[in-house]
Amino acid sequence: MNDANQTWVEQIFLVPPSLRDNTADADRLLAALRNRLETDTIIAEIGLLRDLPDRLRQWGYQARCILFSDGNVFYLVDVTDPKGQPPCAGLAVDLGTTRVVTRLINLETGAVLAETSFENPQTAIGDDILTRIHYADRPGGLDHLRDLIIDGLNRAIGELCHQAGIGTTDIYLLAVSGNTTMTHLFLKLPPRWIIREPYIPAVNTPGIVKAAELGIDANPRARVFFFPSVGSYFGGDLISGILFGKLHRSDATSLLVDVGTNAEVVLGNREWLIACAGAAGPALEGGVAKIGAKAGPGVIDTIAINAATGDITFDTIEHSAPKAICGSALIDLVAHLFAGGILDIRGKLVPEKAPGRIETDDGIMAYVVVPAGQSATGQALVFSQPDIDNIIRSKAAMYTILETLTASVGLALSDIDTFCVAGTFGSLINPRSAITIGMLPDLPIERFRVLGNSSLEGAALLLSSRHPVTEIAAIRNRITYLELNVNQEFMNRFSAAKFLPHTDTTLFPSVTVPAFASSLPDKMRKMVSFEAAASIC
Amino acid sequence: MNDANQTWVEQIFLVPPSLRDNTADADRLLAALRNRLETDTIIAEIGLLRDLPDRLRQWGYQARCILFSDGNVFYLVDVTDPKGQPPCAGLAVDLGTTRVVTRLINLETGAVLAETSFENPQTAIGDDILTRIHYADRPGGLDHLRDLIIDGLNRAIGELCHQAGIGTTDIYLLAVSGNTTMTHLFLKLPPRWIIREPYIPAVNTPGIVKAAELGIDANPRARVFFFPSVGSYFGGDLISGILFGKLHRSDATSLLVDVGTNAEVVLGNREWLIACAGAAGPALEGGVAKIGAKAGPGVIDTIAINAATGDITFDTIEHSAPKAICGSALIDLVAHLFAGGILDIRGKLVPEKAPGRIETDDGIMAYVVVPAGQSATGQALVFSQPDIDNIIRSKAAMYTILETLTASVGLALSDIDTFCVAGTFGSLINPRSAITIGMLPDLPIERFRVLGNSSLEGAALLLSSRHPVTEIAAIRNRITYLELNVNQEFMNRFSAAKFLPHTDTTLFPSVTVPAFASSLPDKMRKMVSFEAAASIC
Repeated sequence: MNDANQTWVEQIFLVPPSLRDNTADADRLLAALRNRLETDTIIAEIGLLRDLPDRLRQWGYQARCILFSDGNVFYLVDVTDPKGQPPCAGLAVDLGTTRVVTRLINLETGAVLAETSFENPQTAIGDDILTRIHYADRPGGLDHLRDLIIDGLNRAIGELCHQAGIGTTDIYLLAVSGNTTMTHLFLKLPPRWIIREPYIPAVNTPGIVKAAELGIDANPRARVFFFPSVGSYFGGDLISGILFGKLHRSDATSLLVDVGTNAEVVLGNREWLIACAGAAGPALEGGVAKIGAKAGPGVIDTIAINAATGDITFDTIEHSAPKAICGSALIDLVAHLFAGGILDIRGKLVPEKAPGRIETDDGIMAYVVVPAGQSATGQALVFSQPDIDNIIRSKAAMYTILETLTASVGLALSDIDTFCVAGTFGSLINPRSAITIGMLPDLPIERFRVLGNSSLEGAALLLSSRHPVTEIAAIRNRITYLELNVNQEFMNRFSAAKFLPHTDTTLFPSVTVPAFASSLPDKMRKMVSFEAAASIC
Repeated sequence: MNDANQTWVEQIFLVPPSLRDNTADADRLLAALRNRLETDTIIAEIGLLRDLPDRLRQWGYQARCILFSDGNVFYLVDVTDPKGQPPCAGLAVDLGTTRVVTRLINLETGAVLAETSFENPQTAIGDDILTRIHYADRPGGLDHLRDLIIDGLNRAIGELCHQAGIGTTDIYLLAVSGNTTMTHLFLKLPPRWIIREPYIPAVNTPGIVKAAELGIDANPRARVFFFPSVGSYFGGDLISGILFGKLHRSDATSLLVDVGTNAEVVLGNREWLIACAGAAGPALEGGVAKIGAKAGPGVIDTIAINAATGDITFDTIEHSAPKAICGSALIDLVAHLFAGGILDIRGKLVPEKAPGRIETDDGIMAYVVVPAGQSATGQALVFSQPDIDNIIRSKAAMYTILETLTASVGLALSDIDTFCVAGTFGSLINPRSAITIGMLPDLPIERFRVLGNSSLEGAALLLSSRHPVTEIAAIRNRITYLELNVNQEFMNRFSAAKFLPHTDTTLFPSVTVPAFASSLPDKMRKMVSFEAAASIC
């Protein structure tokens, strides 16, 4: 068999038993499946085999078999009526720290049946991973965190099935891709040691688990595949992303970065893969800046400054009165401020370049984005120097991580053939702005590829076809994980990257640096370098 | 590793994690086990992994791992304190239709901790397999049969653990060897199709099942291995017997026969194995003869007739007054009656050879074994001609099966190097008597080997060492099953075997045939042949 699309659902036609061939029903079916799947190992639960004799006779020794595998062992998940009507469904789950995105698909055709997303209910315990890990250590804490996410998922499953017009028992397979901690909490595995030196997860490769054991509302025989993690800080969501981005299959060298609080980066091709993760700071997502906010009504998502007049134009989500600015628009804003000379190459506001737009409160300068009279809150939306500094540090950390990983294999950032940006936040960023501020390398724009929710897409891919699962283990095993050491070399790179776009402007040939700011006295460079060393720790 | 005795319990010493080697706890343990067991596939349940991080740290990254395998996949059953006190126990179960024999062993040393047996509680539903299979078809019938055997086993487990001074949770592994139907009823698999053409079991190879799923009182993580069957009439108990008898490892050609209601026979050596099963009739076990009974107080188990005087000497179990005769003593009795000329070569009573011992009631002759005055019941124990005929038919069927199987591979019975007799009943038979009546072939007595309860022994062997499990699949796959066709050739053999010891006395050189009976008119031979053809159907 060499079908282009071999799915997890196999229609099997058996030779009925006879006096000359009296192999047992289960053994007959499993032998046919072993032959079809070219494997020695298919595990079938005894509970499934109890009904088999009557079912096979009723169906004339034909059956629709639903299989699953962790890349090593195959499981016979269920055997259903070969002429059965409702589709066999699979559920792809992107298990995010903040948001969980789910997609219901038809396992036989790969068609999307429904999609929904919800806020990870564990955010009620804490927005960040660390708070949840500490909470898990309290009596009953881990159980509670697990219940929150499973209940949330079950609600989403109810909604998806309603949308698709199927029953929850029609869901046979699930694929979950999340970071290492989220996967631990989902599986009720203690996350305690993830954050304690030497940072050891309980499990890297959970493999396949029964949905019923986890309390998931699906077919009682349904099974869940978990994308494996490489380590505490490089989770299954990234493996899923690599699978979707096809880095491991490409001759050309690609880089995949999930831009967020953590910058998780993979570089490689079909020969090798190297990865690292580092804190880029929540500033990039707009989570820290006073006027920053996640997308929602009244949040500015598009912004531009007219270089000639200094006038600001913007748009808000649902066109409501502005109340905040989303992370990607903040990056646009920094790029425009810099292009207009309102920020110098150190990222400091230059008041004389924006007359009337810059105010000082208690000695802190701030750029007025929306005057009080025009905002939804009645207060001016201002972009203060500390907020700007935060973003600069974050973008510098991001660039430094990219540069360090690339340099570790003897390449320059300019050698990257394809630069994949993953994650919801990543898909909102304007690469041109990100290049202008020196957050992403100055590559021709056509080399950038926005992957979207690659974690979800990878999970959906796994459910749509039998092939990816063997690739997953290969991807995981091929990845070399680079532990980022904040040593002198890293600090030097970081200090250089704290300029707009960079101390070494030859790295950013496409960015026009305003003339006045292009020559800084050496003394000032040193000062900046010192400040960076202090602030990263 | 090439230890002489590799058990299912492995002491593992891990290199503790460090910043340079931050593999997850579970992956670290599984990698070490994969290396130790030389396998790619070890399945560990998520429930087991939840406690692992804390346990490994507490035990200094040492652990005692209990493993199991079906010959294909390994399961990590549990991880326990490396310095833990109570032994890890395993339970071998010979799941007989009539009697269940259990043995508790220490998995690390193979030492026997306790042993007990009990009547299969399903006999309350029916002594024979057929009744139980029909009962299983009634609503709730299969559940009831399953409950009976599981409850019975759980009582035995309680007793064994009490004897051994361990807890039921110290039992981690079980090995069950039973015939195909008993295995089905134990697993609540429908046995319906076993007795309906073309005689298809639900499952031949149940493999490994969780004890908790079956309601067995053992460690919650305990797993049960089921010896695979070859077909409806050749069960796991025989595979277990072959394993114990080592037929599959021998250069010499051996025959293994489980003498009972069914004669199950395997012939072969390290190159090939051929098997068949056929009804030899319950008469051999004493189940049908009016005076026949299973062993018990007052049952005659030793009997002899003084050839000169015609006097009978016997002994009973517990030396009580005689009330019945056990199956093996009936075989002795037939042998003595024949040797004394009281039975002719057709197996017919010769009244003039036992004056005063033979009475006729309603035209039916019977030999008085114990006069009324000496029996426990106050009634004479008589061995009637129909009872004798029954035994003759059964022994003829047994011999015919042995002869047919041997001839099918071009061998004579005299070519058999080792003749293994298995089963409790088999171990009671006096081979000399069995040869005299022509039930077993006339081989030198030193070629006979009494295996005892080979089904139990094979199960115990599997629990004591990791090696046998791979042999089991090989044994099963190597067996050619010969379907016995009751054709003309079979009937001719059967007719010839209905004589004492056989029509062809050259096959039994060691048996002295009383002179008077050695020449039967041809007419009589034909008559006998016709009768046989009618009675076997």
